[in-house]
Amino acid sequence: MTEAKKFIYAKRFDGLPKLTDFKLETETLPALKDGDVLVEALYLSVDPYQRAYMTRYPVGVPMIGGQVSKVLESKNSKFPKDALVFGAFGWRTHTVFNPDTEKSAHPAYVLPPLGDLPVSVALGNLGMPGLTAYFGFLEICQPKAGEVVVVTGAAGAVGNVVGQIAKSKGCTVIGVAGSDDKCKWLTEELGFDHAINYKTADLDAELKKAAPDGIDCYFDNVGGTISSSVINQMRDYGRVAVCGSISSYNTPVSEWPKVPILQPTLIFKQLTMKGFLVWSYNNRWMEGITNMKKLVDEGKVKNRETVTEGFENTPQAFIDMLLGKNTGKAVVKANL
Amino acid sequence: MTEAKKFIYAKRFDGLPKLTDFKLETETLPALKDGDVLVEALYLSVDPYQRAYMTRYPVGVPMIGGQVSKVLESKNSKFPKDALVFGAFGWRTHTVFNPDTEKSAHPAYVLPPLGDLPVSVALGNLGMPGLTAYFGFLEICQPKAGEVVVVTGAAGAVGNVVGQIAKSKGCTVIGVAGSDDKCKWLTEELGFDHAINYKTADLDAELKKAAPDGIDCYFDNVGGTISSSVINQMRDYGRVAVCGSISSYNTPVSEWPKVPILQPTLIFKQLTMKGFLVWSYNNRWMEGITNMKKLVDEGKVKNRETVTEGFENTPQAFIDMLLGKNTGKAVVKANL
Repeated sequence: MTEAKKFIYAKRFDGLPKLTDFKLETETLPALKDGDVLVEALYLSVDPYQRAYMTRYPVGVPMIGGQVSKVLESKNSKFPKDALVFGAFGWRTHTVFNPDTEKSAHPAYVLPPLGDLPVSVALGNLGMPGLTAYFGFLEICQPKAGEVVVVTGAAGAVGNVVGQIAKSKGCTVIGVAGSDDKCKWLTEELGFDHAINYKTADLDAELKKAAPDGIDCYFDNVGGTISSSVINQMRDYGRVAVCGSISSYNTPVSEWPKVPILQPTLIFKQLTMKGFLVWSYNNRWMEGITNMKKLVDEGKVKNRETVTEGFENTPQAFIDMLLGKNTGKAVVKANL
Repeated sequence: MTEAKKFIYAKRFDGLPKLTDFKLETETLPALKDGDVLVEALYLSVDPYQRAYMTRYPVGVPMIGGQVSKVLESKNSKFPKDALVFGAFGWRTHTVFNPDTEKSAHPAYVLPPLGDLPVSVALGNLGMPGLTAYFGFLEICQPKAGEVVVVTGAAGAVGNVVGQIAKSKGCTVIGVAGSDDKCKWLTEELGFDHAINYKTADLDAELKKAAPDGIDCYFDNVGGTISSSVINQMRDYGRVAVCGSISSYNTPVSEWPKVPILQPTLIFKQLTMKGFLVWSYNNRWMEGITNMKKLVDEGKVKNRETVTEGFENTPQAFIDMLLGKNTGKAVVKANL
């Protein structure tokens, strides 16, 4: 009999989540039936979408989230013992599941060979955030060499990859991030052409300086007034991939921020804005992983993680990520 | 020697335009050179875009706008005497132009045969507003039979056509307009399924009642909080054609209304919003006129105009249109 630890969504988030919003519980897992697999978490993922999605769940449910885990025991030939697996199992140490009957927006899968890369990359550049960048940017923004690309949340798990893919396509890349250290990382290590610290800079003026002829593609991770500023400096026929709205995730719908109206700019510059969820590209998931792995292997996309040690610290890692304390992908090393 | 009257943009608009913002002047036209054509205005068009565009011009220039005119004299075989012509000649009674060297976003053309239709239809259903509805709605919204379509500014020159085209495609159509009379016209004469007077109704509640399962297509003529309300009730994968933003045209950019943030809805419902200008479809103009004429001839799109008599009253017709006093297309009959 395996004991699993899991974090419960114990109290409805009010603004920024607090440690007391989560409750650690223990659960005895059932014995495996035919087709079942028992996995143990190696790395857990903390992501902005979890803040937004939990508002749709009742309190008392386990926290949602992806993890990389290892098969401890298997009665399913497709998930053999010792295989490394990605699964949307939530914030829990051990999980019994049947991959053949699992009904999830994002089904579990055995990781493809990762070479020398750390397995946690399956939560980052070769996982949900990397593929969010890959599909969202390439499919919606349709970048062409020489175009000017702006990405907000640029030092986050998705944003930094968008910028690096854009560089690999020959674009001029401007990142917007929340600290000088992050900006330095973007320009000095990742090769962004410009990085703007929105907390200290005059964003409108800096954008005008970095992109005097306007912006062609905008990958929007934040929403809010920052996005209105970027959109108002776009060029005719610009494309906006709307990926995240972290500026509003900590406020209830009735208190969502009001921002300058976008319609006049959308019309007169004939812009396209398209919101997306990466799960729309589930049917192309392995294509995305293969192509992202190529970019990583060629050194065109560098891998950076902010690692929190210990399963018990998952809530703190989540809160820190929402506060923007991470650079690159925020993950938790379970250390079980 | 022909004397032309023309209205000058004499004073920068501040909020709603006033009669004193315009100045009537007289100009002596030159004799025709080879290739030139002299036309006399029959009908002039007043449209919301003129309010928005004039902010980009210096004071002192003639007012912009389309007109249907008649060729009085011609030294150009493509525009023979007595031909009926559409041209973006502005608010003026007589014009000399050379169609071969004219450089305009929207070149002048001889009207195709209109059958029994009044020639003013070339400013409405078989002109810019009709083709705005035709291309913008069909190309951007991609409506399918059975889908739910909302159009704002629904009793205006563009909106009423969008709704009628949507009905011809088998959609459920909800119009949002600014008076009970307009709403009555939409449902009783044009066959809209629902019409909501936004000035008196609880828009959120009425939309929920008319579209309990959500909205698939939104043709946005107004922007502002009305549009945020509609967009927040859209269904997954909905499409928004952003055509106009009349709610903001009378305010300067620095005072544009702030509206509830759209990004979270765009993301979680995976919506597409696309702004457009009808001039993008210039290369398909005659295709649009042919297909719109078919819809009109089949009785699927009815023609309604609000006609102001007398060239001198063009500024008043323009102001009345901006106040929403028109139903259907607002035109001025020159009566020269």
